[in-house]
Amino acid sequence: MLLLSGPNLDLLGQREPEIYGTATLEDHRRAAAEVAAEAGYDLQHLQSNREGVLVEAIHAARATVAGIVINPGALTHYAWSLHDALAAFAGPVIELHLSNPAAREAWRHHSVISPVADAVIAGLGGDGYPLAVHALIQLVRASGRP
Amino acid sequence: MLLLSGPNLDLLGQREPEIYGTATLEDHRRAAAEVAAEAGYDLQHLQSNREGVLVEAIHAARATVAGIVINPGALTHYAWSLHDALAAFAGPVIELHLSNPAAREAWRHHSVISPVADAVIAGLGGDGYPLAVHALIQLVRASGRP
Amino acid sequence: MLLLSGPNLDLLGQREPEIYGTATLEDHRRAAAEVAAEAGYDLQHLQSNREGVLVEAIHAARATVAGIVINPGALTHYAWSLHDALAAFAGPVIELHLSNPAAREAWRHHSVISPVADAVIAGLGGDGYPLAVHALIQLVRASGRP
Amino acid sequence: MLLLSGPNLDLLGQREPEIYGTATLEDHRRAAAEVAAEAGYDLQHLQSNREGVLVEAIHAARATVAGIVINPGALTHYAWSLHDALAAFAGPVIELHLSNPAAREAWRHHSVISPVADAVIAGLGGDGYPLAVHALIQLVRASGRP
Amino acid sequence: MLLLSGPNLDLLGQREPEIYGTATLEDHRRAAAEVAAEAGYDLQHLQSNREGVLVEAIHAARATVAGIVINPGALTHYAWSLHDALAAFAGPVIELHLSNPAAREAWRHHSVISPVADAVIAGLGGDGYPLAVHALIQLVRASGRP
Amino acid sequence: MLLLSGPNLDLLGQREPEIYGTATLEDHRRAAAEVAAEAGYDLQHLQSNREGVLVEAIHAARATVAGIVINPGALTHYAWSLHDALAAFAGPVIELHLSNPAAREAWRHHSVISPVADAVIAGLGGDGYPLAVHALIQLVRASGRP
Amino acid sequence: MLLLSGPNLDLLGQREPEIYGTATLEDHRRAAAEVAAEAGYDLQHLQSNREGVLVEAIHAARATVAGIVINPGALTHYAWSLHDALAAFAGPVIELHLSNPAAREAWRHHSVISPVADAVIAGLGGDGYPLAVHALIQLVRASGRP
Amino acid sequence: MLLLSGPNLDLLGQREPEIYGTATLEDHRRAAAEVAAEAGYDLQHLQSNREGVLVEAIHAARATVAGIVINPGALTHYAWSLHDALAAFAGPVIELHLSNPAAREAWRHHSVISPVADAVIAGLGGDGYPLAVHALIQLVRASGRP
Amino acid sequence: MLLLSGPNLDLLGQREPEIYGTATLEDHRRAAAEVAAEAGYDLQHLQSNREGVLVEAIHAARATVAGIVINPGALTHYAWSLHDALAAFAGPVIELHLSNPAAREAWRHHSVISPVADAVIAGLGGDGYPLAVHALIQLVRASGRP
Amino acid sequence: MLLLSGPNLDLLGQREPEIYGTATLEDHRRAAAEVAAEAGYDLQHLQSNREGVLVEAIHAARATVAGIVINPGALTHYAWSLHDALAAFAGPVIELHLSNPAAREAWRHHSVISPVADAVIAGLGGDGYPLAVHALIQLVRASGRP
Amino acid sequence: MLLLSGPNLDLLGQREPEIYGTATLEDHRRAAAEVAAEAGYDLQHLQSNREGVLVEAIHAARATVAGIVINPGALTHYAWSLHDALAAFAGPVIELHLSNPAAREAWRHHSVISPVADAVIAGLGGDGYPLAVHALIQLVRASGRP
Amino acid sequence: MLLLSGPNLDLLGQREPEIYGTATLEDHRRAAAEVAAEAGYDLQHLQSNREGVLVEAIHAARATVAGIVINPGALTHYAWSLHDALAAFAGPVIELHLSNPAAREAWRHHSVISPVADAVIAGLGGDGYPLAVHALIQLVRASGRP
Repeated sequence: MLLLSGPNLDLLGQREPEIYGTATLEDHRRAAAEVAAEAGYDLQHLQSNREGVLVEAIHAARATVAGIVINPGALTHYAWSLHDALAAFAGPVIELHLSNPAAREAWRHHSVISPVADAVIAGLGGDGYPLAVHALIQLVRASGRP
Repeated sequence: MLLLSGPNLDLLGQREPEIYGTATLEDHRRAAAEVAAEAGYDLQHLQSNREGVLVEAIHAARATVAGIVINPGALTHYAWSLHDALAAFAGPVIELHLSNPAAREAWRHHSVISPVADAVIAGLGGDGYPLAVHALIQLVRASGRP
Repeated sequence: MLLLSGPNLDLLGQREPEIYGTATLEDHRRAAAEVAAEAGYDLQHLQSNREGVLVEAIHAARATVAGIVINPGALTHYAWSLHDALAAFAGPVIELHLSNPAAREAWRHHSVISPVADAVIAGLGGDGYPLAVHALIQLVRASGRP
Repeated sequence: MLLLSGPNLDLLGQREPEIYGTATLEDHRRAAAEVAAEAGYDLQHLQSNREGVLVEAIHAARATVAGIVINPGALTHYAWSLHDALAAFAGPVIELHLSNPAAREAWRHHSVISPVADAVIAGLGGDGYPLAVHALIQLVRASGRP
Repeated sequence: MLLLSGPNLDLLGQREPEIYGTATLEDHRRAAAEVAAEAGYDLQHLQSNREGVLVEAIHAARATVAGIVINPGALTHYAWSLHDALAAFAGPVIELHLSNPAAREAWRHHSVISPVADAVIAGLGGDGYPLAVHALIQLVRASGRP
Repeated sequence: MLLLSGPNLDLLGQREPEIYGTATLEDHRRAAAEVAAEAGYDLQHLQSNREGVLVEAIHAARATVAGIVINPGALTHYAWSLHDALAAFAGPVIELHLSNPAAREAWRHHSVISPVADAVIAGLGGDGYPLAVHALIQLVRASGRP
Repeated sequence: MLLLSGPNLDLLGQREPEIYGTATLEDHRRAAAEVAAEAGYDLQHLQSNREGVLVEAIHAARATVAGIVINPGALTHYAWSLHDALAAFAGPVIELHLSNPAAREAWRHHSVISPVADAVIAGLGGDGYPLAVHALIQLVRASGRP
Repeated sequence: MLLLSGPNLDLLGQREPEIYGTATLEDHRRAAAEVAAEAGYDLQHLQSNREGVLVEAIHAARATVAGIVINPGALTHYAWSLHDALAAFAGPVIELHLSNPAAREAWRHHSVISPVADAVIAGLGGDGYPLAVHALIQLVRASGRP
Repeated sequence: MLLLSGPNLDLLGQREPEIYGTATLEDHRRAAAEVAAEAGYDLQHLQSNREGVLVEAIHAARATVAGIVINPGALTHYAWSLHDALAAFAGPVIELHLSNPAAREAWRHHSVISPVADAVIAGLGGDGYPLAVHALIQLVRASGRP
Repeated sequence: MLLLSGPNLDLLGQREPEIYGTATLEDHRRAAAEVAAEAGYDLQHLQSNREGVLVEAIHAARATVAGIVINPGALTHYAWSLHDALAAFAGPVIELHLSNPAAREAWRHHSVISPVADAVIAGLGGDGYPLAVHALIQLVRASGRP
Repeated sequence: MLLLSGPNLDLLGQREPEIYGTATLEDHRRAAAEVAAEAGYDLQHLQSNREGVLVEAIHAARATVAGIVINPGALTHYAWSLHDALAAFAGPVIELHLSNPAAREAWRHHSVISPVADAVIAGLGGDGYPLAVHALIQLVRASGRP
Repeated sequence: MLLLSGPNLDLLGQREPEIYGTATLEDHRRAAAEVAAEAGYDLQHLQSNREGVLVEAIHAARATVAGIVINPGALTHYAWSLHDALAAFAGPVIELHLSNPAAREAWRHHSVISPVADAVIAGLGGDGYPLAVHALIQLVRASGRP
């Protein structure tokens, strides 16, 4: 399984803690990986501030990964190349956000990723990470994948 | 805790199964209640096709309920009175959808409920019910409520 | 067969007669029922000012009714729950209006019901009722229903 | 009485039968003419792919015709000259569509003809033709015309 | 005379007091009734969270009530059926709001009720209630009604 | 206290009496001043057809006036400088209109003044003047001003 | 010189006389031709209900005509081919309307012809015809043409 | 008769001569006054860069002037107070522009003056002045005024 | 094979040569026909300034023609009847433009033809004609047609 | 050189100091004048709450002033007459704002002045005044003016 | 000559073959290079999922490359930096798409690249590659470049 | 201090010199660095055509840099990740443009960077660089930073 984190998420714990909390991305990754491990899955993680790097990680995942959880950060709102990369990925995809974009600025209300996501989880803070992996496992199993 | 289901969700299992699956609302309620019970919470459930009834259930919940999971059905897209009722509820609120509205018709992309929801979970089908309750428990606990 | 009448149609004959005419809803129902009876159908009728009641009538009709004629009144323009209820009804649906909404105020030009209606009849005043039932019978028969 | 058919309706029976059915325009005209004849009216018919020809047919009808049924085809969506010609016609006008435009592509949702139509009938396939003529007769009689 | 209160107004005094104040709806009703009584009018009051109940109260008021003051709550922004019910009421109608919607969220800037209201009073908090009744009496008297 | 009247209000009694009535602005001012006098307030009045003059009157009022009632006339719809002047005035502000702009042309539906008005009173004709002053006194007293 | 009249203008004198007056197109043409004749110009006239015919008349005029007055009728609002034909005409072009489109329905406010017209004259009724020809002569002379 | 010139028109002859020509406003006024004098009318002229001054000139003209030609300059696009002043003027009003606004920047395409103008003349440069006065005389005479 | 040319293309070589070049439509037709002939196809050509004529040419082509190249001229932007005619043509369709509409005025950016075109070629000037025919041959062959 | 200040800037130091700071307009003028004086320029200053006065100051500056710095206040957002006056000024123009409009309310994001400004400086508070004059001197010198 | 391929085009042959076909990008490149070679040109190729890499390739091409064919993939719809890089390239540019974006989702209808492309070729699948190179050679030669 | 330059700015001096001037980015950097040095600050500079690289430079600057001047190039209009990176930077940020975007194409009027910029300087060409650094120093000092 693959966990992808978009731009600025490497700042978690430092940036606007009133919105994003004080835990670091590594904290969230570890919680997510535990859920995966309990279910017998390996969870790879990649954070990148570059859309192209995320696109290529998704390409690489096509052959080897059962499903993807992606927190696209601000790429959520304009990264159509990321959209197309996910559209070309056959397994389930979950879009994850720490905060609830629909309750923030107007430009955060529209996601170019959602149309190619099977599911969306938003607003649960760090708790969203293990939950999203848990949900992904259920989607993977429901689809009969290993 | 309170689980609210909006219009047409009483048809679950019969209506457009290719979108909403074959499980019934009672199946989902039971799965959700189990998660609540495991954590020591009682989960009340109300399904109504009438916005006013849901509004009044939220009013009644103000004194007695720690948090709300609501699947507003099509009320999601125009029920500002429901929005105001939830805005007047002090505990955490999770908006839940079986399918992913952002991947369906354009008019389903806009939620009048999201601005007053702490979190949104969409697209996980019936699995969303226990997950939403699980997440609600975490939000309730994080807020220091009993 | 089911004839549904939405909000304020109980005022027919009293309200804005220059737009809606002087006949009452009962007059229209009777004319419609006659057409149905001639073709060997029973025509049930329900008028309600409450969206939820209409939604539930449609649910109840799923098992027992061959087709629906609905004059949604002002619900035409915002009642997405009614839309979803009709979408879950398998038989033919005809949307009926006494006046021609496209020739009135701008907000009456958009119908949230039309996307799930098989046919639309508007602007024929009370004559629309028997015509709509007549047309519904043809749709029902064309679909091979009893 | 006058029945007008706009662009591409001469292809009926050949073009996209899953939308428009297999009957030809001549079939529909004949069914419509029978209804007119039963009521003692003569029904003239003109199909044209040219807006100007339809405009001129409406001009010619001003002195001699009691009412018009028009299926404007795709002219529905941009032919303001046709709109103005119908606005200058004193008798009743019924806008007729085989399919229900509101349930198709977005650009088919807006009619420039509806504001000058007394009534609209859509989605009844070929059955709409005799029904529209039947309805037109009622409108003509209600207006006290011969 | 009739005073109508829409959804969530039963929470007055409890809900968001920084916007709506600490007085209850009963406080406001009493102040309004006193103004009516001084002028020799009886003021009936109905609060409902259900659009249909308000619609029916307006229907019932057609024969017996000289004028209406309505605080539609969030129904202000989408309840076209309420609009149509008020349009069918012959006496004067005053739309009342505790806060000034134009100074709040964008979706509160548009009222579907205003086009059928004779007057609008907004932003005076509880003081708006007696003032609105006072103004209604003047409108009723100006129209020569008893 | 200050009563401000915007462009064209000097024509009251002459201009479009079917909309604005036959009373003159002086009639309205006198009725308003009486209400103020009864409560022990002096009511200054200024009518101007020039936005800049109104802006400067508001500046001058900053030190000496407890509250403002303003009928901005057509400046309502574009006078952002007037908006900024009122935003810099510390006391309460009531926006007053003789007719109900929401029931007139579309361009009258949007007010650039409302976001900086505490309250809005519209549609009461000349009766709005004394009522607005009455309401202003209540807002001034509620704010603890002399 | 060329005077072009678009769809439905052949009905002048019969169609909606409260908007367009009782004079016929021939009356207007004669008044216009007199002005041209006094200045030594011949004024050809063509009325057509068909955009293509008008396009071809403009093509033919390229070699032989000094300037064009065109009343495009409802083609004003959508006939981009007419726009392109006029754009390819080197001499001055005056767009003429009997009524003032900006004071009528919203869809009449936008002209696709104006961007290629040197001048616009609207709202003068039949008086516009001789005035437009008079103005065209001035534009032609100002451009140094014969 | 009254000729009104809005902001920046005092610069005529100096400002952007490729758009507005080299003649001065006084040149245009003189040509216009000659046409008026020939018909036995006196033509007053006022140029102002201040909307309020123009509004007051229109007020003053109500008792004494048979008709108005106004070139509002850039006030064309936002001066609703000017609109209301002209709406309160009973005689005919002609809106005049030197250039053709519809062929320039997008924001010049919308006039707030046109809805209250009887006629519009645009794009004729200085020739528009005498023509507009000539047309105004015809409108005045047609209305039976002296 | 059929090459269709819309309004004003008969002016090619004369009209705005800086945009459209100096070659005539006959030059382009000949170059296109040569490519067709080399591949063993006959290329018919029709230019018309009338939408209806093009519609009828497409109807006639249904039985006899393997594919269509169409340069719709300005009909590109509003001719929905042409759209429907092409939609009813079973073979491949290529939309061709001499210039690149996306680099010109905003209203040229939207094509009503593109949704029913298999391919679009724009901006190659006269070179587009032989290229479009070459491409059409490939599409025809790929579809297994003769 | 000319420094122009629009409506409400006379309140600087008193109005909303959290946005605009505590320095007065005279403080800013003095700082700006010093920069001008150091470079050998005289800096005139005019503050007005009236658009027309600013328009006339720009007219007067045409013959005598090398460049303009203008803080249009709220006129920024609707004063097209001011736009046209600046368009007719040949020297460089700098638009200056104390705060950054793009980071405030939506209606402050659009400037009608910017299209005719050579440069924009915003958000530097009082520091913007001397900087703008400094920049204006550079633009004036670059243009070869004295 | 330079052939540029944007994000996800490295997946060609694997991704959504019903839209993009089964040939690989290497297949297309080879076909394109053959056309170039026949005409005596060398065709370089770069595929990148990163906008910045493509921008830099265009910079590098400024000195050495006669023309560019670019299939921007999803960058088509938002990559203004790519737009600016192409705007700074002096030679001809052809925008190439495998499918016809105008016949797909609404967000694919708008290209930020087209305004700086000389030509657009879309919808020809892999055949578009050699055709685009062929067309580029013609544009290069027409511009007198080597 | 940090000076950031976005895509295509490495072409300065070569690209569209009529808009951007003939000086190189190195020229501008040197002028800016001198101002910084005079005030005792070191000015680092980074130009990148890749959004991700700029994001990471801002991250790295969080601990070490007092303020940022950024010319985002075309990233101005869509780079929400850059927006978020700047939002997470505590010191002052100045957005700098060589030309005035508000006076160019419509798509350049909207900046996604401005909402997180303290100040904006645009249209001063290369002079903007030293001015922006000068202004940044003032903002840094005003905030009490070293």
